[in-house]
Amino acid sequence: MESSSRKHHVRCIVKLGGAAITFKDKLEALNRESLSKTSLQLHEAMGGGVSFNMDWSKNLEVPDRIDMELPQKRAFVVVHGAGSFGHFQASISGVNKGGLDNSLLVNAGFVATRLSVTKLNHKVIRALASQGIPAVGMPPFAAGWSTHKRIVDCDNVSGVREAVDAGFVPVLHGDAVRDSHQGCCILSGDVIVRRLAEELQPSYVVFLTNVPGVFDRPPSEENAVLLQEIVVYEDGTWSIARPRLEAPVKTEMASHDTTGGMATKIAEAASISRLGMDVYIVEAGTEHALQALKGNIEQNWIGTIVRKADST
Amino acid sequence: MESSSRKHHVRCIVKLGGAAITFKDKLEALNRESLSKTSLQLHEAMGGGVSFNMDWSKNLEVPDRIDMELPQKRAFVVVHGAGSFGHFQASISGVNKGGLDNSLLVNAGFVATRLSVTKLNHKVIRALASQGIPAVGMPPFAAGWSTHKRIVDCDNVSGVREAVDAGFVPVLHGDAVRDSHQGCCILSGDVIVRRLAEELQPSYVVFLTNVPGVFDRPPSEENAVLLQEIVVYEDGTWSIARPRLEAPVKTEMASHDTTGGMATKIAEAASISRLGMDVYIVEAGTEHALQALKGNIEQNWIGTIVRKADST
Repeated sequence: MESSSRKHHVRCIVKLGGAAITFKDKLEALNRESLSKTSLQLHEAMGGGVSFNMDWSKNLEVPDRIDMELPQKRAFVVVHGAGSFGHFQASISGVNKGGLDNSLLVNAGFVATRLSVTKLNHKVIRALASQGIPAVGMPPFAAGWSTHKRIVDCDNVSGVREAVDAGFVPVLHGDAVRDSHQGCCILSGDVIVRRLAEELQPSYVVFLTNVPGVFDRPPSEENAVLLQEIVVYEDGTWSIARPRLEAPVKTEMASHDTTGGMATKIAEAASISRLGMDVYIVEAGTEHALQALKGNIEQNWIGTIVRKADST
Repeated sequence: MESSSRKHHVRCIVKLGGAAITFKDKLEALNRESLSKTSLQLHEAMGGGVSFNMDWSKNLEVPDRIDMELPQKRAFVVVHGAGSFGHFQASISGVNKGGLDNSLLVNAGFVATRLSVTKLNHKVIRALASQGIPAVGMPPFAAGWSTHKRIVDCDNVSGVREAVDAGFVPVLHGDAVRDSHQGCCILSGDVIVRRLAEELQPSYVVFLTNVPGVFDRPPSEENAVLLQEIVVYEDGTWSIARPRLEAPVKTEMASHDTTGGMATKIAEAASISRLGMDVYIVEAGTEHALQALKGNIEQNWIGTIVRKADST
């Protein structure tokens, strides 16, 4: 912990859900529109101002205003899911179950999964850089994240912090990593967000998804109710503060989602809000997403807030 | 140093020169043919046998033979240069001169450079994976490499070693990294190769380039002579053992080559061979490249060998 030497307090950790930035049912299908909207909103949330393209892959014209003030508001960390990049490859080969040493299928699946998620990572960074966000990729496997029995064992939070201090926006993602017990496993973006939140203590955390928040049952079902506020208690249990419900909450899980569905999401959000910061779960690209990214929720906001119960 | 726990001795570190896998004069232009040939040769050098595609981005058909023996011969580490990916972006913004904190141009150039070199890294990994090589990207910035006054200060050799021990072929590259004195700089692929060679002590090192080896003057010039053997002495000086030359050696430097030209290459190769291992500098894609990658040079081999002077 080098908290004493920190230059910037991390303002926000934002998770770009795989379902929000990809089409989950089609192999390696990017949702360009959603990613582009989100990049624009992130730029605005980071202070806005003149934006210039940091993707110089098409031309090398350098902007005139080269000595603009460096914005301090952009102390964000971005983590994205895999969506249709990586999930299929991981599922079919069983990377999450381990067995790297004795199965060429797992070995190949590990490589194929990483090839796919890092492709998405590159696309996300390019979208952010195009909006003038100084995004730098920090793929967890390469950066030294690993697990023991699928629990994070080594992380690279110090590297993330250093990148933020240097004025960058680190971009991590769900990845295939080494596991000291079973050889390998999938480290989900949600788990990365939690670890980062624990150590970086951001002011707030935002999960961007493809639905308006967390519902009491799969949102495609009739009468699905948006859970507006979830309150988390000291012991880790949680309850729905708004609206008042009578039936128990169902959860959703896509068959190729190797890292769990909405139940995992609530549990992860709850474990983060226990650390003391509000968690917003909101639909990517909407005005509500922008409010959440700014940490400035208005009266008519639509989404799910997960917060720690008042201890008073 | 965890040398006691090493499973695999690293057989070869291979540098894919930027000039060999890209067209250096055109922004982000990949030399697909050369990269593809080299990937095929690497597969053969790593033991050959059944190759199956580990790039599952187009389809998810898993091969029948899922429990083939894992080859031990593939203890290779690959490092590639930037070529036309990254060099232009780095040059125009002055990333190598530092100044990250007070220039948005440098900040943007750092992002643009990384975006470009990681794009190439992805293409290299995909080409290798397509030939059944279990390649995993380890971008230096993300993996924690950094410099002090442009000299490597922190590295991630232990992570590279662990990836090799897990049966993977790590793929590193020249990158923009943080510098604790000047803010940032360019860490060249050649410098990475040297650091890796120092600590991993491979049996041999291969530099693949776009010309048949090191010449006494720019190889495009008339009467350029291929230096067949360079001998390096204890004190770091070197001389040309074969052929016998009368004129002093000239060197080549492309204007956008931010990491130096042939002089740097000889100096780097000499500093590696001083460690005790042979260094082969050879044209990518040729039969001579394949011999070098196998560590098995035949009588009629064309290329440059850099080796330590016999101490007897």
